[in-house]
Amino acid sequence: MMEDQSSSSSAVASSKTADLDAPLHAIGFEIDEFSAHRVTGRLPVTLKCCQGFGVLHGGVSAMIAEGLASLGAHLASGFQRIAGIQLSTNHVRPVQLGDVVYAEATPVSIGKTIQVWEVQLWKTDPSKSKDKVLVSSSIMTLMCNIPVPEHAKANITRLRKHAKL
Amino acid sequence: MMEDQSSSSSAVASSKTADLDAPLHAIGFEIDEFSAHRVTGRLPVTLKCCQGFGVLHGGVSAMIAEGLASLGAHLASGFQRIAGIQLSTNHVRPVQLGDVVYAEATPVSIGKTIQVWEVQLWKTDPSKSKDKVLVSSSIMTLMCNIPVPEHAKANITRLRKHAKL
Amino acid sequence: MMEDQSSSSSAVASSKTADLDAPLHAIGFEIDEFSAHRVTGRLPVTLKCCQGFGVLHGGVSAMIAEGLASLGAHLASGFQRIAGIQLSTNHVRPVQLGDVVYAEATPVSIGKTIQVWEVQLWKTDPSKSKDKVLVSSSIMTLMCNIPVPEHAKANITRLRKHAKL
Amino acid sequence: MMEDQSSSSSAVASSKTADLDAPLHAIGFEIDEFSAHRVTGRLPVTLKCCQGFGVLHGGVSAMIAEGLASLGAHLASGFQRIAGIQLSTNHVRPVQLGDVVYAEATPVSIGKTIQVWEVQLWKTDPSKSKDKVLVSSSIMTLMCNIPVPEHAKANITRLRKHAKL
Repeated sequence: MMEDQSSSSSAVASSKTADLDAPLHAIGFEIDEFSAHRVTGRLPVTLKCCQGFGVLHGGVSAMIAEGLASLGAHLASGFQRIAGIQLSTNHVRPVQLGDVVYAEATPVSIGKTIQVWEVQLWKTDPSKSKDKVLVSSSIMTLMCNIPVPEHAKANITRLRKHAKL
Repeated sequence: MMEDQSSSSSAVASSKTADLDAPLHAIGFEIDEFSAHRVTGRLPVTLKCCQGFGVLHGGVSAMIAEGLASLGAHLASGFQRIAGIQLSTNHVRPVQLGDVVYAEATPVSIGKTIQVWEVQLWKTDPSKSKDKVLVSSSIMTLMCNIPVPEHAKANITRLRKHAKL
Repeated sequence: MMEDQSSSSSAVASSKTADLDAPLHAIGFEIDEFSAHRVTGRLPVTLKCCQGFGVLHGGVSAMIAEGLASLGAHLASGFQRIAGIQLSTNHVRPVQLGDVVYAEATPVSIGKTIQVWEVQLWKTDPSKSKDKVLVSSSIMTLMCNIPVPEHAKANITRLRKHAKL
Repeated sequence: MMEDQSSSSSAVASSKTADLDAPLHAIGFEIDEFSAHRVTGRLPVTLKCCQGFGVLHGGVSAMIAEGLASLGAHLASGFQRIAGIQLSTNHVRPVQLGDVVYAEATPVSIGKTIQVWEVQLWKTDPSKSKDKVLVSSSIMTLMCNIPVPEHAKANITRLRKHAKL
């Protein structure tokens, strides 16, 4: 029974991620919390996330940062369209094939026009362990007062369904 | 006949990319030139590269930048192991589903310990058109004097096979 | 006579810089070209620009980048108010006390809302020598559609006086 | 008597800053805490720190970030020579002439070869007020295993004098 619940919880996270961010879904990332104050998730590091040396591809870390910050900024702007302007990622520690990476995006500054989000990746689940091992730290800058065109409103509905408002 | 040649040339690029960078291969990116002075490639923008609004995911641009700069730096260091330290990406123009994106990585500075590479993404093939439409511009900083451990030497052999020396 | 001309040309650059950017003037930087396509200048590296080891302070390189990019963006926006959002600087080579540094800012992308400028610092005058020795490379992101408040219009007049339109 | 003490405390901070970082001293910045875990200080915003619109020059914020992170990294490396590689600064709120800015640098990651520091600037003293108003946030990447040449050892002695070990 427990196994069923666990896999069903994972299936929910997976389907949520498919709806919210196709490239993150494609690499096996699963979004957990999705709110205007915090977006989190985790990635089991498989071969398709690694560069040739069996180490997590730094571009995957950057893509997670961009994805989570964009989702958070979209919520924090009240479902307006947002556009990523700048992403800066510092890689501080390698992650091996088979590890799990935990990601957390939180706002640095929520302005009317510009938002800045920080995204950190850890080797351990930060909600369960005090012993945080930082993998990478990113800062993302987004423009956030862009009106949503009519044809894009279906996407907003899809996002809203998963948001913790 | 022409079709066969074309698809075979594409198949070569695809297999090269699979060998050189699994995450880039997974999103459909194909590496063309691979030398210590220049690494190039192209990405047909399909649904699996887009965020919810049918626009190229900014994290995909960042991942392309990190991937090409890392491959170039690896060659420029004489096949030593390199490690990405910092990636900064500026997104300047959106790319729609169905477009093709052209990428080019070139060195900014090749030091003994630190290399800096610039990676630009364009909407048009820069080798065929003067009318360059810039999509994003990235700067990647890498550490490059890291010895390759014994168990990783097979990977070097695989890379060498594709390099234009 | 030559001496007079030379010192008078330098005095003009110095007074221009005092008008355009007080902190750059304070460290001895002199602005030469000031247009919407290119902003250039030079800095004799004195003790007040150095950190403790007699090397150009990296923060001075960053300040030059921010200053020149902001001036260029202001012109390129048609004298609207602009605001720096993000600055990324890569330091690639140290500069010693007594050297002269040459700086050049050029636009990467001029959008209606966002501009991106690149600023490079060199050890040799790029207009006189092909042998460019790069010191640092910066990318600056600016927001540029901000109306100028009434009380700030005197500053625009002062800037206009020095601009090459 | 109080006045004397106050001005003497300020004079100590000022002389410390003159010894530690000439460009920061020149703009009126005063370093307070100087340890391997935290470097702090404050800047009264005068005309010589402002751009033409009477607002703190963004390059000054970047210079403070570079200066404090470099000092902290130097201590954290055990007084080895360090070299700034990359600085990323996000400006999130303008600061007016006459305001005081408070700066705090803390380590993000202290590796043997690479250190990463975060530097934040606030409009209010973070040690006295919970109501933090963020001005800018910077991430600095430094290389830190560089031997100190013989002729530079006098500088280390000067730094050591001010460090809280």
